Amino acid sequence: MAENITLALDAMSGDLGAKVVVEAASKVLKKDKALSVILVGNQNQLGALLLSLPSSLRDRVALAHADSVVSMSDKPAVVLRRKQDSSMSVALKLVRDRAAHGCVSAGNTGALMVLSRSIVRMLPGIERPAICKYIDASHHPFLFLDLGANLVCSGEQLYQYGVMGGLMAKLAMDVCEPRIALLNVGSEDIKGPEQVKLAATMLSDNKDLSYVGYVEGHELFFGKADVVVCDGFVGNIALKTAEGVLQLVRYKVDDFLHQHRFLKFLAYVLKPWVQPMLSRLNPESLNGASLLGLNGVVVKSHGAAGVFAFRKAIEQAALEVRAGVPQKINEHLDQWLI
Amino acid sequence: MAENITLALDAMSGDLGAKVVVEAASKVLKKDKALSVILVGNQNQLGALLLSLPSSLRDRVALAHADSVVSMSDKPAVVLRRKQDSSMSVALKLVRDRAAHGCVSAGNTGALMVLSRSIVRMLPGIERPAICKYIDASHHPFLFLDLGANLVCSGEQLYQYGVMGGLMAKLAMDVCEPRIALLNVGSEDIKGPEQVKLAATMLSDNKDLSYVGYVEGHELFFGKADVVVCDGFVGNIALKTAEGVLQLVRYKVDDFLHQHRFLKFLAYVLKPWVQPMLSRLNPESLNGASLLGLNGVVVKSHGAAGVFAFRKAIEQAALEVRAGVPQKINEHLDQWLI
Repeated sequence: MAENITLALDAMSGDLGAKVVVEAASKVLKKDKALSVILVGNQNQLGALLLSLPSSLRDRVALAHADSVVSMSDKPAVVLRRKQDSSMSVALKLVRDRAAHGCVSAGNTGALMVLSRSIVRMLPGIERPAICKYIDASHHPFLFLDLGANLVCSGEQLYQYGVMGGLMAKLAMDVCEPRIALLNVGSEDIKGPEQVKLAATMLSDNKDLSYVGYVEGHELFFGKADVVVCDGFVGNIALKTAEGVLQLVRYKVDDFLHQHRFLKFLAYVLKPWVQPMLSRLNPESLNGASLLGLNGVVVKSHGAAGVFAFRKAIEQAALEVRAGVPQKINEHLDQWLI
Repeated sequence: MAENITLALDAMSGDLGAKVVVEAASKVLKKDKALSVILVGNQNQLGALLLSLPSSLRDRVALAHADSVVSMSDKPAVVLRRKQDSSMSVALKLVRDRAAHGCVSAGNTGALMVLSRSIVRMLPGIERPAICKYIDASHHPFLFLDLGANLVCSGEQLYQYGVMGGLMAKLAMDVCEPRIALLNVGSEDIKGPEQVKLAATMLSDNKDLSYVGYVEGHELFFGKADVVVCDGFVGNIALKTAEGVLQLVRYKVDDFLHQHRFLKFLAYVLKPWVQPMLSRLNPESLNGASLLGLNGVVVKSHGAAGVFAFRKAIEQAALEVRAGVPQKINEHLDQWLI
């Protein structure tokens, strides 16, 4: 039976508002009977939304009031000084105070980064959190990090991400011996920027890890590694580019069906067969990025996440809490970090 | 009528050998009656292949002998010292000596970079060449640079790439007033690494350019800009990731058709309609990357380019030669570079 856990949900910071968060929570609660949630945000607004929940779920939903909201344009430094009463901060404080086992927010990434570092705190030995995501668009899923937390990374930081990613893959993805790779512009040792080459040396020197070398952009989805590490600038752009291409393919297909009306009926008939293939390529199903290296579980949802996507983020947080990801990373840090 | 021009083709450096180059040349020569080519490589080998050409084309094909070949694993520094007699070097020397108007090579990118710089030379004021490609996978084509020439770029270099890319778009893509953008992790001014922010300031300060701000990975194919600039590490990974996703979609579709045999016949029947859509998404049709900032036209083909792809690269070189890209960039440099 699943372990009883509680997640704090920042209900105010997403582009689509609290309604999406409440609906997503409702869907997860129906499926996961051992989960409770604390909705964080404006009490009046959330109180009204709570009435929409089936009464059978309401005893597993609590409210925590927050006076303000972090906006998408708030600068991280300003957030740190002036938004300690925001829904994002309050949700993170629930994690810090062990009132919740983890939290989910669809807010401003930069703000979530700095508030997480200052409220939940880093694990000893880790310099900065990494944003990571489990990408299962193909038959060869992999864990991808960093996706935008640290735009510029040193070789040591990339090494730390490799170590943390490896543990995450083991704990939350059930990979026995995760193959760790660095994203680079070629497969030969001499290729790439200095920090990537340094990380390569450090990863291959650690005999407890199975480091498998460099992967290139076109190899990402083809199973060369279980964990792919890069700096946040490259990771963010690579992932968003992949999402953009999928969007492009989708538009092309729609366009094509529009041009050839006689095929539209056919497409409708074929939908039950085609849908499972398309849904795996749906960027929405990839929602839920984890901030790794913190002393607690923090999951970032897309700002524009709908109900389905936000639900994925909640499930990701629950999975990490139950797998004890932060605790287990902490246990391994002493022996693996230099 | 098209201007008479000559291109030097490095016939030895690609993964698939000289046969592909000769076949691709033959196809372009048939179409472009004002084009001549010089095939560069081992005389015996090329001489034998020449016999396969229709005799009507042979008077527009010359041979230039080269003793060695740059291999894919040769380090750039070693190439510079020891491979001056390679097919790549000889092709570039033909450009330097004005025996050819431009050249195409499918060889090692790093080697092509250093040999181009040392043989063809940079335009005054440009620090390093950029690799750029015209990406027309969607209804919104754009010029993308740098794609791997300079893994680490300063703000000034990114600015130079913006200037050169803008001119290239104007000359070779027929865009009247090219909209120039920087690839970044967000659209707000505060986002991104320092060098990107510096380049943004420089580009927006130049009132002769129309700088339109940042674009994100998922926006690349959706017409926000005609020229997108980034460093070579990010550009290489973004482009290859896009190619990888297209490959993934292709495999998914094949897999799907394989699983549902009754649809396979349908797919065959629909091919004439579906093909035009797919061919635009074919990475092969995107072959032909230009080294921009040199005192001559140098086009890099994919190492694994087949006949169709190598042909695209030759056509790209011919287009740039006839548009006078290096000369026109040179004319504008004085007024636009600081």
